[in-house]
Amino acid sequence: MNALRFDGQVCMVQVPRPQPAVGEALIRVQLVGLCQTDVEITRGYKNFQGILGHEFVGQVVAAPDAAWIGQRVVGEINIGCGRCPRCQRGQAKHCQHRTVLGIYGRDGALAEYLTLPLANLHQVPASVPDEVAVFTEPLAAALEILAQVPVGPDYRVLIVGDGKLGLLSALVLRLTGCELHLLGRHPEKLALVADLGVMTHQADRQAELDNSAQFGTYPPDFDLVVEASGSPSGWHTAVAAVRPQGTIVAKSTYQQALEFNPTMLVVPEVTVIGSRCGPFAPALRLLAKGLIDPRPLISKVFPLAQAPAALAYAQQPGVLKVLVEVSVHAN
Amino acid sequence: MNALRFDGQVCMVQVPRPQPAVGEALIRVQLVGLCQTDVEITRGYKNFQGILGHEFVGQVVAAPDAAWIGQRVVGEINIGCGRCPRCQRGQAKHCQHRTVLGIYGRDGALAEYLTLPLANLHQVPASVPDEVAVFTEPLAAALEILAQVPVGPDYRVLIVGDGKLGLLSALVLRLTGCELHLLGRHPEKLALVADLGVMTHQADRQAELDNSAQFGTYPPDFDLVVEASGSPSGWHTAVAAVRPQGTIVAKSTYQQALEFNPTMLVVPEVTVIGSRCGPFAPALRLLAKGLIDPRPLISKVFPLAQAPAALAYAQQPGVLKVLVEVSVHAN
Repeated sequence: MNALRFDGQVCMVQVPRPQPAVGEALIRVQLVGLCQTDVEITRGYKNFQGILGHEFVGQVVAAPDAAWIGQRVVGEINIGCGRCPRCQRGQAKHCQHRTVLGIYGRDGALAEYLTLPLANLHQVPASVPDEVAVFTEPLAAALEILAQVPVGPDYRVLIVGDGKLGLLSALVLRLTGCELHLLGRHPEKLALVADLGVMTHQADRQAELDNSAQFGTYPPDFDLVVEASGSPSGWHTAVAAVRPQGTIVAKSTYQQALEFNPTMLVVPEVTVIGSRCGPFAPALRLLAKGLIDPRPLISKVFPLAQAPAALAYAQQPGVLKVLVEVSVHAN
Repeated sequence: MNALRFDGQVCMVQVPRPQPAVGEALIRVQLVGLCQTDVEITRGYKNFQGILGHEFVGQVVAAPDAAWIGQRVVGEINIGCGRCPRCQRGQAKHCQHRTVLGIYGRDGALAEYLTLPLANLHQVPASVPDEVAVFTEPLAAALEILAQVPVGPDYRVLIVGDGKLGLLSALVLRLTGCELHLLGRHPEKLALVADLGVMTHQADRQAELDNSAQFGTYPPDFDLVVEASGSPSGWHTAVAAVRPQGTIVAKSTYQQALEFNPTMLVVPEVTVIGSRCGPFAPALRLLAKGLIDPRPLISKVFPLAQAPAALAYAQQPGVLKVLVEVSVHAN
């Protein structure tokens, strides 16, 4: 089969179709979303070598349980060992021996076929088209915010960063009815949610973001700040913007350490919650009900044969979600 | 009256007896505890100039409500403006315009008399002697851990640091029945709680503390880590020792920034909670019931006239709580 492999450099390769292990399904991939993590891997993140890609929708073509065959599915990306204390606590995504689809120890979705345990699969409702379903994984990551913090309708919330994760977080958080602010550098990205009742704030340089005057109060005193900028300046902005006893949800990973004095958290008794992958089932429910429509975030769709070009395009300034079409649903 | 003042240097001074403002009581000070913050102030912390000291027990000698006169009291140290949104949310300790007894904008307790609003005072039960009651403020700070994290009896908890705050935290946390570990550098301090069922671990250098082997499991995977070491290495130890989706309660303030990558919190979805002053009423209840006896932490008692020597003594290695006796209770 054809696949996009990374082994120090990115290239299309011909490899054998994967063989499902015990408990696993074989899935014919239909559509794949590119993520910043895919880009980071090509820069050395996790020292991963293999087939890239972890956001996908596809069709089960072989499975130990026949009821799954023919189902259109999305899949959770962490595969725990199933035996360690963390797995037994239901924390497979934190298993020390886990593999992660297209990220760590397991080939990914930028190929004609992939394998995943049945336990990782979620059936996609027929009403949800592929180009919506492919957002399930990143939308789940945004929903993890609400799984961790019970955001009330009276909350003042700031999202720092107008990339894909920041925008999906805005689509999720606006459903709570909270007073929602989004701070970012790109007017065209901010415009995508400005019509949805999100108060957008443009900052030319994130260093200026802690100028709290732009939020209309001094100090800004947000109950919740979501750091989704991917930039260390976003971390400092979040610390400056949160109220005493408020919460920062940290979604961003940074390539390098930053200078920080935890005293900035201790004195105002701020809570920081690290946040990563999230729950698929509610993501699919919100997509199926049309409460979230991620399609305005799609920048361009490439065929699998042009996946290297897609990955290059995804790194252009201003580009949001890039999709790679692998096959068309057979049903 | 006699007082210990800091105005660039520490010295005993004669100053007028303070005049209580509207709503305030005049309190004759009986016993004062010295705190690391007092030491930090003499090194420039908060640029405070005035009478030092904020841990005290005393007797009300004048008050707008006669029922308070003659009462033996302890007092909360933050005085909010009472009008701002933070005060109206009950967050006086985070009021931007607050004063703090002996720390910021208000003379402290190392004097024959002090003033505080009646709203800050708590009556001390007759069964609690002065040398126990004087621990109310730091014990409340330790109780803030439980006010922030509902520690269950099945938790594995690590306290990093065997100073006063670490030891008081151990006295508080052992009451939950949790599996409690204390990590510190000083065998004589660890010994103070080893008999109380706390599992103590000595580390010659805190840099070695993330050698998880000493906790008997790999990885250490503590549900809760309390960082009370006051040292940046304690921060890194806490991050290494907490389990995925676990909690770090950060009690330490540091003089300088440290190098840290928040990715270390994001990937394992760790929560960090900044923690400072805590609730007085439960502290007094635990002291009154004898469930916590802080007296083994007392290193030495000095009279007020020797307060400068007391402050110097408090900075000697191995010294825990130093008390300053100002007057004896009249009743």
